[in-house]
Amino acid sequence: MTYHILKYTDSSLPDYLINEVKKRGEYSEKKDLNADELKKAYEKTDILLVSGGTKITKEVYEKFKNVKMIADFGVGYDGIDVNEAIKRNIFISHTPNVLNDDVANTAVALLINVTRQMIEAHKFIERKDWEKGSVMPLGVSLTGLKVGIAGLGRIGKAIAARLEAFKCDIAYFAHSKKDVSYKFFTSLKDMTSWCDALIIAMPSTKETFHCINEEILEKLGPDGFLVNIARGALVDTDALIKALDNKTIAGAGLDVFEHEPTVPQALFNRPNVVLTPHIGSATTYTRMEMAKLVLANIDAFIAGKNLVTKVPGTRDA
Amino acid sequence: MTYHILKYTDSSLPDYLINEVKKRGEYSEKKDLNADELKKAYEKTDILLVSGGTKITKEVYEKFKNVKMIADFGVGYDGIDVNEAIKRNIFISHTPNVLNDDVANTAVALLINVTRQMIEAHKFIERKDWEKGSVMPLGVSLTGLKVGIAGLGRIGKAIAARLEAFKCDIAYFAHSKKDVSYKFFTSLKDMTSWCDALIIAMPSTKETFHCINEEILEKLGPDGFLVNIARGALVDTDALIKALDNKTIAGAGLDVFEHEPTVPQALFNRPNVVLTPHIGSATTYTRMEMAKLVLANIDAFIAGKNLVTKVPGTRDA
Repeated sequence: MTYHILKYTDSSLPDYLINEVKKRGEYSEKKDLNADELKKAYEKTDILLVSGGTKITKEVYEKFKNVKMIADFGVGYDGIDVNEAIKRNIFISHTPNVLNDDVANTAVALLINVTRQMIEAHKFIERKDWEKGSVMPLGVSLTGLKVGIAGLGRIGKAIAARLEAFKCDIAYFAHSKKDVSYKFFTSLKDMTSWCDALIIAMPSTKETFHCINEEILEKLGPDGFLVNIARGALVDTDALIKALDNKTIAGAGLDVFEHEPTVPQALFNRPNVVLTPHIGSATTYTRMEMAKLVLANIDAFIAGKNLVTKVPGTRDA
Repeated sequence: MTYHILKYTDSSLPDYLINEVKKRGEYSEKKDLNADELKKAYEKTDILLVSGGTKITKEVYEKFKNVKMIADFGVGYDGIDVNEAIKRNIFISHTPNVLNDDVANTAVALLINVTRQMIEAHKFIERKDWEKGSVMPLGVSLTGLKVGIAGLGRIGKAIAARLEAFKCDIAYFAHSKKDVSYKFFTSLKDMTSWCDALIIAMPSTKETFHCINEEILEKLGPDGFLVNIARGALVDTDALIKALDNKTIAGAGLDVFEHEPTVPQALFNRPNVVLTPHIGSATTYTRMEMAKLVLANIDAFIAGKNLVTKVPGTRDA
């Protein structure tokens, strides 16, 4: 049979992936389809190619009556109604592990950039402030810094491994104790009171929505830094902006936002805020590894085998 | 006796250090003195308070006839004519070790910022390019990157320890093999041909002046990154600018410059260049540790004891 594969995400995917997918069936992209073509696509699409944030709600499933597999280019699948997929017997794959290193590298980059004011330092030179004799305020050392990691999954562990080399004092918040020597907190609030920097590395779910709220930001305190490389929905953006305005916290490094690609202008041009456009996994090497894993999953589906990396709880062959 | 202590550097020093120095003698700052006062200072100064780059040449020694000690706030002493101090039986202290961690942290920050385009990513958001649908080019992963460290002293080793956690492939260039497992090169040229990123962590001397020249930059190549946290004089700036213009190298992260605080405007506004104003050790914690070490050395001198951290080769009590 000929598989009909539809790219249903607006995000950019590697050319390699697109070219390989085309060899596996009839390929089209949602953005290229007019209303008529989209209607046809609803009927015949077998495989949906999505990325982390793509919304696959009950209404979307209703439209795509023949979808048998959702291939997610990314580790997070917060946009996908997984229970509905289970009910409908749909396969879902994602791309865990291969992106751990680069996402963790991004988290460390944001932490050091915000504590050491690297972006502001760069702007300071380009404004010629240094040449004119201005002195930058001193930064905060990563060495000895108390860092709390919210969520010690694959990515959280990779972040911790790097921070060990910087001689940080590391703690984590999780539901259960892991086999690591870091300080363990069962309360996010308690860990936030303890730490100088809070790194968010949890999945985005209904339960974790806006878990970084006004109260947590107050616990983080005027010397505390927030880093988010997970999902924008975990942080109450309005509360964060207020906390920055009121100096409730010292600064923030953010790779993810509530309404990507829109970033609230209230976060711009602050010397203590570092913003990056969801580039956690955005290296040539890692994106290629993710592409290969998406293909391996599609090939497993086509061959009638178990997926290589299925979303937990979803069906096998 | 009353010691006359003169701050002879233009750099900003911690208030704590200044206040403590004032308790140890009569204190003045060069920048506050008129010609007459400076003339008097030449005659009576016992202790010169300087920082890394401060030029203490033969001519300066000629003027300060009574100087007995030079206290350097920093680890580098490339501005000081050490041989002349030895001839004149002058004590010189510097502040090694206490700044290793933060300078190494800065090196890693520059490397990840330039390979992952973090500054450009921040500007990309503030220009609203992301919101408008633009896509940033992919970055280069630190994981698996071949990094060559030129100079494996205290700071070079601290850099390597951090890069191990990022799973970099590490090599070093030094005159003699060290007790480490990293790849060892006796030729800077050979190491540069091998590596994807070259980090300069050598002292600045007559021999290392402009050791990063046109030839080395060509060996680094169009996929190669340069990071300098040591001294501006190690890099031929004109050759570097040419290499950036011609895409001979992929990018550069620079914390030090040939004519600080002036930075050539030709280095500004390049998406592949990260600039910071010599902030290697610029954290509250480390600057305090450096201040304490300067004071410990001044106190040792006053007490007639050996300095705590004298510049190698200089006199003991």
